[in-house]
Amino acid sequence: MEEKKPLSGAGLRGQVAGETRLCTVGKEGAGLTYCGYDVRDLAANARFEEVAYLLLHGGELPTAAELAAYQAKLKKMRQLPVALREVLERIPAGAHPMDVMRTGCSMLGNLETETDFSQQRDVADRLLAVFPSIITYWWRYAHEGVRIDTETDADSIGGHFLQLLHGRSPSALHEQVMNVSLILYAEHEFNASTFTARVCASTLSDMHSCITGAIGSLRGPLHGGANEAAMAMLERWQSPEEAEAAILDMLARKDKIMGFGHAIYRTSDPRNEVIKAWSRRLAEEVGDPVLYPVSERVDAVMWREKKLFPNADFYHASAYHFMGIPTPLFTPIFVMSRLTGWAAHVMEQRANNRIIRPSADYAGPALRPYRPISERS
Amino acid sequence: MEEKKPLSGAGLRGQVAGETRLCTVGKEGAGLTYCGYDVRDLAANARFEEVAYLLLHGGELPTAAELAAYQAKLKKMRQLPVALREVLERIPAGAHPMDVMRTGCSMLGNLETETDFSQQRDVADRLLAVFPSIITYWWRYAHEGVRIDTETDADSIGGHFLQLLHGRSPSALHEQVMNVSLILYAEHEFNASTFTARVCASTLSDMHSCITGAIGSLRGPLHGGANEAAMAMLERWQSPEEAEAAILDMLARKDKIMGFGHAIYRTSDPRNEVIKAWSRRLAEEVGDPVLYPVSERVDAVMWREKKLFPNADFYHASAYHFMGIPTPLFTPIFVMSRLTGWAAHVMEQRANNRIIRPSADYAGPALRPYRPISERS
Repeated sequence: MEEKKPLSGAGLRGQVAGETRLCTVGKEGAGLTYCGYDVRDLAANARFEEVAYLLLHGGELPTAAELAAYQAKLKKMRQLPVALREVLERIPAGAHPMDVMRTGCSMLGNLETETDFSQQRDVADRLLAVFPSIITYWWRYAHEGVRIDTETDADSIGGHFLQLLHGRSPSALHEQVMNVSLILYAEHEFNASTFTARVCASTLSDMHSCITGAIGSLRGPLHGGANEAAMAMLERWQSPEEAEAAILDMLARKDKIMGFGHAIYRTSDPRNEVIKAWSRRLAEEVGDPVLYPVSERVDAVMWREKKLFPNADFYHASAYHFMGIPTPLFTPIFVMSRLTGWAAHVMEQRANNRIIRPSADYAGPALRPYRPISERS
Repeated sequence: MEEKKPLSGAGLRGQVAGETRLCTVGKEGAGLTYCGYDVRDLAANARFEEVAYLLLHGGELPTAAELAAYQAKLKKMRQLPVALREVLERIPAGAHPMDVMRTGCSMLGNLETETDFSQQRDVADRLLAVFPSIITYWWRYAHEGVRIDTETDADSIGGHFLQLLHGRSPSALHEQVMNVSLILYAEHEFNASTFTARVCASTLSDMHSCITGAIGSLRGPLHGGANEAAMAMLERWQSPEEAEAAILDMLARKDKIMGFGHAIYRTSDPRNEVIKAWSRRLAEEVGDPVLYPVSERVDAVMWREKKLFPNADFYHASAYHFMGIPTPLFTPIFVMSRLTGWAAHVMEQRANNRIIRPSADYAGPALRPYRPISERS
């Protein structure tokens, strides 16, 4: 038996579990970087497909020709196999959309199995192209009874998603906000879902297994889903005054307020300022008199009372809502984006692998003899 | 930013990641214990359903009345929902059986969602009862075109599986070997698939997500699948002499020999002596003149040449083969068994949870400014 190192803190917090070239989180002066690029810089200037290329295809931004070829490749991969459509049609309308994503990804693994790691980039690109098709095909079949064609002429993944969801081309503003949102959620180092993908990858399992597992972890309310919870909270209030009173009540009762604070960031979440600005623009566009002012007031009260800052999820709630996205689809959008980080980490794990197999402290009963069942009472 | 502890070893080897009351592995003088019971003691005396009860229902062996009630409960939970059958029928015959297990479990999560943790034991029991139905329904539909009835009068899970697979009641010997095998594979502390389940559970995700993720990790060739690989190797040889020559060749070429050595055990795998004895009995029963002698010779040569011992997987290959189980179903049997450990760890993680979120050492490019795409070449 190997000697065990003592338990350093629950949840492996602060414990280095590996090396990455993909991301820094909360590193002094840099906030959040993908392959060395500040996420705010990317969100202001890049397309999500550029960021996906950066993460999945070697760590450098594409040239114009490479990006054009990449977008053309992704556009051709949006069709769902017949068997996958038939599976999605058998999932009830009341299902959890993350269960649908998890099952869609897993089913695809039966139909387009990664049989060799040389296929890993193509498998990741296929999932990137097809995830919007999976979730919207199921959603519209389950809720409207229509079988949508999942091919569109939208160049961007965000625009494609909105077009499939609403059955019409999105405005340029909405397409851009989706683009920014997908960039902001793309990668975040060794968070729980990414770590799930790496543990799975460390057994040399296939890409679909790794991504399926990651979706299952992102489904948890302590991880993904905070933007949905924030929306459920915000839509209860009709005015900033009502929101402030309710928040003060909740704080007095020590209720958890969703969308604030972060496990790693200590002073602010660099993604918040970006999505907040876009949410304000959307509020102006739709002439919203309630949701954005309510959100801003909650933000102000939380800072005044608790010095807690909004994280990436908080203003995503109103932003998605203004674009007509149903709340249950918020976390599946997170999947469409974070897939890029997950798959990049899977490839990184494979390139320098040792199976991830920690130890445990034993706190159970000492060795005891089996007693025949007739002697137990 | 929190201060990070240095990387102590790849794969978190020897690093304590949490506490458990369920299992010890390689602890001096105890070998492998489940809730304090030596696995050899359990394999010699217990039914697998007793072990499942031990792991899933509070850490004590059941009384006769509790076991009878538990087996009756499990027997009533073997039916597949129509939608799940329809999904399984859409998975091609050439699919990887672990992809089928993963998808079956994930699909069931849409149909029988765990909406509250108070349901966790029932969900685990349901999966325990239904996994043999999932894999055999698909296998026989895909390979024989028959839609089997997944209810049988078999009392044991192992007997139920064999009956569904072969369409007839198994012999008492075969039912007993399945029973022993399911006990041997039931639990193994923080192995990669169990750790996957715990990382997923730490986000407070649902049981189906945790188990689906664990199946994906067990699928990897460094984890589950060693018994399949051992079988594929062993069946190439027609005599012990041929096997010995081939093994010596493989060792000279530094090929990996499947089914030997272990990440934790240093001198022997306590499960090996158990399954080896049962494999010998099965060889006698079927009058096998090749596979068992070949296996024994490989075992002897590996010890003589490399001081490597067979692990739990090695004699499982011949044992399963003697019972007429197709090689691709070996790892799904591992799932039917290890499910008990996975679900027990999920419940243990939930009972004292902190999200599992380690840190990473950054080895990528320094902060760099975004350059417009027109300026890249």
